[in-house]
Amino acid sequence: MKIHNFCAGPSILPDEVFSQASDAVKEINNSGMSLLEISHRSHDFVDIMDEARDLSIELLGLSRKDYTPLFLQGGASMQFLMTSYNFLKNEAAFLNTGTWSKKAIKEAKIFGKVDVLGSSEEENFNHIPKISIDKEYDYFHCTSNNTIFGTQIHNFPKTKVPVFCDMSSDIFSRVINFQNFDLIYAGAQKNLGPAGATLVIIRNELLEKINNDVPSMLNYKVHSEKSSMFNTPPVFSIYVSLLNMRWIKNSGGISKLEEKNRKKAEILYSEIDINPLFKGHAKVEDRSIMNATFNLTDNNFKNTFESMLEKANIKALSGHRSVGGYRASMYNAMDIQSVKVLVEVMSELESKI
Amino acid sequence: MKIHNFCAGPSILPDEVFSQASDAVKEINNSGMSLLEISHRSHDFVDIMDEARDLSIELLGLSRKDYTPLFLQGGASMQFLMTSYNFLKNEAAFLNTGTWSKKAIKEAKIFGKVDVLGSSEEENFNHIPKISIDKEYDYFHCTSNNTIFGTQIHNFPKTKVPVFCDMSSDIFSRVINFQNFDLIYAGAQKNLGPAGATLVIIRNELLEKINNDVPSMLNYKVHSEKSSMFNTPPVFSIYVSLLNMRWIKNSGGISKLEEKNRKKAEILYSEIDINPLFKGHAKVEDRSIMNATFNLTDNNFKNTFESMLEKANIKALSGHRSVGGYRASMYNAMDIQSVKVLVEVMSELESKI
Repeated sequence: MKIHNFCAGPSILPDEVFSQASDAVKEINNSGMSLLEISHRSHDFVDIMDEARDLSIELLGLSRKDYTPLFLQGGASMQFLMTSYNFLKNEAAFLNTGTWSKKAIKEAKIFGKVDVLGSSEEENFNHIPKISIDKEYDYFHCTSNNTIFGTQIHNFPKTKVPVFCDMSSDIFSRVINFQNFDLIYAGAQKNLGPAGATLVIIRNELLEKINNDVPSMLNYKVHSEKSSMFNTPPVFSIYVSLLNMRWIKNSGGISKLEEKNRKKAEILYSEIDINPLFKGHAKVEDRSIMNATFNLTDNNFKNTFESMLEKANIKALSGHRSVGGYRASMYNAMDIQSVKVLVEVMSELESKI
Repeated sequence: MKIHNFCAGPSILPDEVFSQASDAVKEINNSGMSLLEISHRSHDFVDIMDEARDLSIELLGLSRKDYTPLFLQGGASMQFLMTSYNFLKNEAAFLNTGTWSKKAIKEAKIFGKVDVLGSSEEENFNHIPKISIDKEYDYFHCTSNNTIFGTQIHNFPKTKVPVFCDMSSDIFSRVINFQNFDLIYAGAQKNLGPAGATLVIIRNELLEKINNDVPSMLNYKVHSEKSSMFNTPPVFSIYVSLLNMRWIKNSGGISKLEEKNRKKAEILYSEIDINPLFKGHAKVEDRSIMNATFNLTDNNFKNTFESMLEKANIKALSGHRSVGGYRASMYNAMDIQSVKVLVEVMSELESKI
């Protein structure tokens, strides 16, 4: 029986990606060797790295002339630190839309002045604050999608200040004008690949602004000059990310996946809105098409609902402790069918009132 | 036909580890889900992390009472920076035995004073300099095994200064008194597992000396307090490292593997020493039992030798450009048989003189 895995991350990837990845652990490219035992300097892996870097840029509709793609380690948490170590010289502006924004702000404060232009913390991050950027800053930092609270930025502020964006949970899921961003980063374990790799896409001009005294492993320029191979990269995670990006391309690219993602979100939010037993956490206009957060209106139904979820093979629907209730993560690889199964269970619960 | 993979890293692991890892990418613990799609907060993964941490300590004969094991990201290169960011307050001492020691020294200089107590750089790192540590330092740092040059520290200096050691290429391969070390680290991709994970074993007392202003992702104390789950860890690399550590334990532990490793090294070095066509790079007393470096004495035999290697299915024997010639990496998972095949080819070459 099919499992419907709504986990927020690490999360589902297409079945064919799991299958190809499993094969590569046994043998890569008819070499008689496992992917895990080949040198990262071998042609086999250099080709993987090159294709993965090129494809990340291509899928976003960007150009290598303007941007450099890097596969690094440490997830978004390492990027909180790297962005500020490399670029926070005087003051940076932040939009505080959730747990991950807060962590980015915390790390930046070690390196310079931080101006929080807007925050929805007092309303438990249930919306995206509207802001304008009227001053000069080293950069403006935001989180495009807030997995924990189920909100997503649908209109990015217009500004001449360089824009840095943590797109960990919605990269490759919708078309935006990626050229408006100067530094994009994403921990792999949602829409990109398995945990262990981090994609950074940085505008080439920015690389020239980095001081030489930034330690090598934290220095974007060093990684760029070494073609993302300053040291041994996370071979397996990059390979699986490549397999997944190939799947995205073969599925018709980001715009095709966005259609599917919007359809899934619409099906679920419609149910949340008409079913009296459920209430959405995020304000309607700021709802995420990746992660829907909702609570029961009557906790007497908790046990019944959860045993129904279990029977339907619905996994990892628990909400984060900051919001409670439920969270349905509907990343690229999730079929519409899985969302329909969830909605059927929610609807069946209503019939028990 | 069996492939004999002498790659310096990423490198071979036992066949059963590749096979189990491949299966887990398809399905973990009969869950119906891939290892790659489960939450790192799930029981399945928390159990993996706990067992991996405990086993790393157990294999080294240490105790959790005195030491904390962490699985981090970024390889030894990130540890060059983390060790100094956390602990270099005034001055640290270094032993310069090769490329990786030099890189560690370079990063440390960003954070404080560095005293290089000995260096074999002028003789292309063909030996381990003898040193004594007569002053107070924040710590003393050394590289236990030098993959590129084929040397290994057989007698660690005795000192009251905290000893930090990069054991990336020989951890779990020989018994030493690990209690003499205060911080041990190892990039996984040699004797521990696949690229993408880094093991750090740190004496508990040291954790108390860390300032709060060290950024979270670089702060050993933060990682320790979060049981090595401050952020999403490299799930796959840690799982495969666990599989490999289980294999080490089932093989009789480090002491059994050391016997095998010494036998392999003896077979190869004997051939290097009696065969007039080959000359070892490292001084005999400092030779590594993991990586043997050697050159042809007559380069007219180069093409013949290399086509014989190819016919025998011997892979990745090229030396690093700093030494040239050949390098045979004989990590734990390598069978004695593979070394015998190499020695046969070397011996056959001699018959062509």
